[in-house]
Amino acid sequence: MAEDDDHPFDAAVRLTSSDGVWAGRTHPGYWNMNGPYGGITAATLLSAALEGPDTGAEPVTMTVNFCAPIREGVFRIARTDLRAGKNVRHLTIELRQDADTVAAQASVVLARKRDTWSHQVAAMPAAPAPHLVERFATGGRLAWLERYDFRFVAGLPAFDNSLRMPPASPYSLLWVRDVPERPLDYASLAGLCDAFFVRIFQVRGLFVPAATVSMTIHFHASRDDLAAQGARHLLGEVDAAVLRRNFADQTARLWSGDGKLLATTTQIVWFKE
Amino acid sequence: MAEDDDHPFDAAVRLTSSDGVWAGRTHPGYWNMNGPYGGITAATLLSAALEGPDTGAEPVTMTVNFCAPIREGVFRIARTDLRAGKNVRHLTIELRQDADTVAAQASVVLARKRDTWSHQVAAMPAAPAPHLVERFATGGRLAWLERYDFRFVAGLPAFDNSLRMPPASPYSLLWVRDVPERPLDYASLAGLCDAFFVRIFQVRGLFVPAATVSMTIHFHASRDDLAAQGARHLLGEVDAAVLRRNFADQTARLWSGDGKLLATTTQIVWFKE
Repeated sequence: MAEDDDHPFDAAVRLTSSDGVWAGRTHPGYWNMNGPYGGITAATLLSAALEGPDTGAEPVTMTVNFCAPIREGVFRIARTDLRAGKNVRHLTIELRQDADTVAAQASVVLARKRDTWSHQVAAMPAAPAPHLVERFATGGRLAWLERYDFRFVAGLPAFDNSLRMPPASPYSLLWVRDVPERPLDYASLAGLCDAFFVRIFQVRGLFVPAATVSMTIHFHASRDDLAAQGARHLLGEVDAAVLRRNFADQTARLWSGDGKLLATTTQIVWFKE
Repeated sequence: MAEDDDHPFDAAVRLTSSDGVWAGRTHPGYWNMNGPYGGITAATLLSAALEGPDTGAEPVTMTVNFCAPIREGVFRIARTDLRAGKNVRHLTIELRQDADTVAAQASVVLARKRDTWSHQVAAMPAAPAPHLVERFATGGRLAWLERYDFRFVAGLPAFDNSLRMPPASPYSLLWVRDVPERPLDYASLAGLCDAFFVRIFQVRGLFVPAATVSMTIHFHASRDDLAAQGARHLLGEVDAAVLRRNFADQTARLWSGDGKLLATTTQIVWFKE
């Protein structure tokens, strides 16, 4: 149940259980243009996957499909265990509102990971410390933008609706964290993976109708990595390869303050014209 | 039904329908170490998603989760329509063998795409023409390896089991196409997305138990792009960012012979130690 001193994130992803059916409610603090911010939906579905007694399991990957607009109000969550192996579990999660409308669907892989040989190939890009970078003025445009502290090192998005000719680079490098500050966990890491603004706004320099259709997240962070990161800024590195025929890809890497790769993510974004 | 002059790919992805239940059969020509090659499973699930009267729909993205080993023999395929909007459809596909074992599960997004403003950000890496690059000697190790013509421009994988110290780069650049030659379609493009060998073999220079757990493909090719490509080699550009605690990521871009980005893909690979 909601408590007065709740972080909006915790309130937004909270599920209640009654007769074996989980329910949640959209949160005004994460409202986007026409529905909840996609990252909070991903975080909610991941929370449902992580719910339960198997506290040693960590998320390996999840794919969230945004099937239909989510309206303001109550939604129901159903979890299906596809397969439980000794160390790896496969689940699907559905979010429904009207009786037969699946508004969002996710597949999630959980695992009991062990220490192995390891090698981080990618290196965190150089960036000045977060406190040296100006905070992006979100200006009260949309509720969800107020839930993140964005500090752009490179690739400031064009929110001035001024057409870029030739197209601008889709690359951005930015520090980002929850507002208010909140220690990182898997659900908030999933939420952050969608925080990088649709690339087409930046590339074209103008707003067009656009929406994330599907997002995949690979989780590379251990619980120790999350604890070490705490509430500090993550460094996000975002790019795109192609925008063509109504759809654009988008990729991101999320780094800890200490240069550890915590998550990598790809999404496919619908745009109108 | 199988015909004598079938391409092995067509035989492998063919489904038969009886009383509303689709069935298929594993194909010896795509056998991997302990089951079918993951790419042929992805291709089979995509074929099931594309089956039907909506011939204008193109795949936008799919995520395939490999839940349990697939045994030699017959499997059943079940398709669920999650949501059908005006231009975008969301489906899930399950592959089962024993009564309650989901061996593979996929979510697929299809769309009727239209021409829009478009911009390819990424550029195809320079590479000598396929006929100038030596064909990789697969040496009859595994059946599925004989189904592809690999020509490495850079990052030849270490199949000599000689430990690399320090770890080698996971990057590879290679031409690849079906054997026998076969005009590209969406299903074979999905199959090719898994053809790039688990990166840990190359990075460490030795074989360890490893398996793809989940693969996501973003399809950027139109039907015209597929027709223009025909049976020519695609250029594959493969990399990885991190190998840690039993799991490694892997990303690839697949380019047409003319430098058009046809698909981008990411996968997460389990490895033992």
